[in-house]
Order: sequence, then C-alpha cells, then structure tokens
Amino acid sequence: MSKLTEMKSVDFLAALASSAPAPGGGGGAAMAGALAAALASMVCNLTIGKEKFAQQEPEVKELLDEAEEVRQSLLALVEDDAAVFNSFMACYKLPKATEAEKSARIAAIRSAAKQAAEVPLAIARASYRALMLAERLVCIGNPGVITDGACSAILARAALRCAEYNVRINLGLTKDEEYNHGVQAELNNLLKNAEELEAGALALTDKVLE
Amino acid sequence: MSKLTEMKSVDFLAALASSAPAPGGGGGAAMAGALAAALASMVCNLTIGKEKFAQQEPEVKELLDEAEEVRQSLLALVEDDAAVFNSFMACYKLPKATEAEKSARIAAIRSAAKQAAEVPLAIARASYRALMLAERLVCIGNPGVITDGACSAILARAALRCAEYNVRINLGLTKDEEYNHGVQAELNNLLKNAEELEAGALALTDKVLE
Repeated sequence: MSKLTEMKSVDFLAALASSAPAPGGGGGAAMAGALAAALASMVCNLTIGKEKFAQQEPEVKELLDEAEEVRQSLLALVEDDAAVFNSFMACYKLPKATEAEKSARIAAIRSAAKQAAEVPLAIARASYRALMLAERLVCIGNPGVITDGACSAILARAALRCAEYNVRINLGLTKDEEYNHGVQAELNNLLKNAEELEAGALALTDKVLE
Repeated sequence: MSKLTEMKSVDFLAALASSAPAPGGGGGAAMAGALAAALASMVCNLTIGKEKFAQQEPEVKELLDEAEEVRQSLLALVEDDAAVFNSFMACYKLPKATEAEKSARIAAIRSAAKQAAEVPLAIARASYRALMLAERLVCIGNPGVITDGACSAILARAALRCAEYNVRINLGLTKDEEYNHGVQAELNNLLKNAEELEAGALALTDKVLE
C-alpha cells in the first residue's frame, strides 16, 4: 500500500470506510490528533509576528516547534498503525498443525498484540501533547483565533480517547497482566488529566465568547 | 485554491497549520466528522455479508447508505467552510469612506456572518447524524469491530462540539437576536443528546471489552 498520509483526504477516508480492516480506529485517532496539532500550529502562526503578542512570542515559537513535531509524529503513527495491524493479522495465518506450531503461533500472537498496543499508546501520548499545547495556546495565543485553539483541544482529547480504546482491545490478547496494568494506569492518568485540560481551555474560550 | 479534500492529507494538514485563516476550526471539525462517518461505514462493511449478522443486515445496509451520504456532505462542507470564510473576510475590505458606505459595509458583514454560521451549523447537524449511526452500529454491528464504532462516536461528538464553537463565534456578529436564539437552542439540544448517545455507545463498548 502507498503511504496513507500521501493519499488524497477523500481517498484516505474511502480506505478508512472500506471493509479493509486497516486503516481503522487507530488510524482515525492518529489523523484526528494530527488535525488537533495542525490547529495548534495555526494558532501559533496567527500569534507570532504581531506586535500585540510580542511578550509571549518566544514561548509561542517553542509551542509551534512542538506542534509541528507532534503533527509529524501522528502522521507517522497513521502509517505505523496500519503496518502493525497487518503484521498482527499475519500471525493468525501461522501453521497450527502440531503442538509446537500451536504454541509458537500463540506466542507470536501475544507478542504482536503488545506491538499492536504500543502504536495506539504512542498515538495517545502524542494526542495528549497536542492537548497540552492547545490548552496553553488558548491561554496565551491570539484571542482572535481562540475557537481554533478550543477545537484543537476538543479534537486532541477525542484522539486520546479513541487511541485508548485501540490500546485496550489489544491488551486483551497479550496475556501479560503486569504489562497491561502499567499501560492502563498510564492511560487512565492521561485521560483524567485530559478531561481537566479540555475543561479549562473551554471555560476560558466560553468566557472570551460571552 | 484547488479543492481542499482533493489535497493529500499531509498537505491539507499543512494548510490547516499555516497562518492562512482558512481552512481553520470549521474545516477541522468537518474533517473529524468525515473520519467518524468513514468509521461508521467501515463497521457496516465488516458486518454486511456475514451469516452471523444476517438478521440485522437490512438495517445495516441502510445505515451504510446514510454513512456514505454523511461523509460526502462533510467533505463538501470542508470546502464550503473555507469559501464562506473567505467571502466573509472580503466584506471587511468594503469601502467605508462615507456614511452610506459604512452602513452598507456593516449590513454586508452581518449578512455574511449568518452565512458563515450556517456552514458550521450544517457541520454540527451532519456530525450529529454520524453519531446516531455510530451509536446504532455499536448496538447492532459486528462486535469484532465495536471499538471502531466507539471511535466513530467519539469523533462525531468531538466534531459537533467543534462546529458549535464555530457557529457561536459567528453569531456574535449577526446582531440578529431571534436568529441567534433559534440556532443556539438547536445546537444546545444536539449537544445534550450527543452526550447521551456517546455515553451509551461507550458503556456498551466497555461492557464488551471487559
């Protein structure tokens, strides 16, 4: 398959809609996170270079660098999610005629499930970074584009929540309780903080729009 | 500008990230809604044609038709949002040397603000339709892809919430209290129902993943 993110948006969406199991929810999550990061960059770009916001410009420039990096990571994760899903599915096609083959196949599936969990986990972490950027930009960015910052926060948290479902479905197959527990604890923490960050950003936006 | 949705995803995201004010939050909302609709189609396509789900197949086929239609509408709205924003900005460049010019300019801005509110309002309505589809598919679709249905629900509600901010910022400029009141009442109703639909879909998904 050619690179998913090099496809026209209309064609990527058609691929997502098709019965091909990848791209799926993980790719959709990464793309939503990339939309959030792009909106964070936009707020930076419409803040930098304006005399009114000169005081916060050094910080906004740093936020822009990070937003660009987060967007590129999420674009790479769209590809990774499809790749890892396809390798995961390949494990199910391993031979299972003998007992030795059966146990090798099960071990391969469990190991692939961990790899398949790691990609949406990375999507969750990157989306959380996008959310932190959005929240800060709602506070210090150009208030003329505060709703774009609010949209960035909403989409970043949505991407994180979608990614969490895609991690969780893979954890069911790892059979590694310790690993699963650590990953789920990290995600629960991100989800909890994300709720607060989004609420803060939207409360400020609502106040400005009043 | 060439059609935004015909651009490569990576280039659309770069355009969103740039200092060009369109595409902005409205386009991001419509694209997130299109991701949600595409995931709803995917769940349909992985349910239809499987003997196990034969009983619900007629309904799922109808849901697929609607999901395809909603995705196409949202793709068109990505373009509309940028177009209407650009016409809106053009009003600010109208002459304002005489009193007559001044009042003609203000009338043009107010009328353009209504048009600029109508597009994200349409994005909100289409995203809500995507959410209704996602919720139903979580209930009757192939449970093997229930997390894709959950992601569809999360992204659809996020798109609706983003669209609402983009309507609201334009309502501030219409100076038409009756119009604003009607639109805001409709949106508040969609937002309230959306919260319940999403919560229902995720509660069911959580139960299946347990």
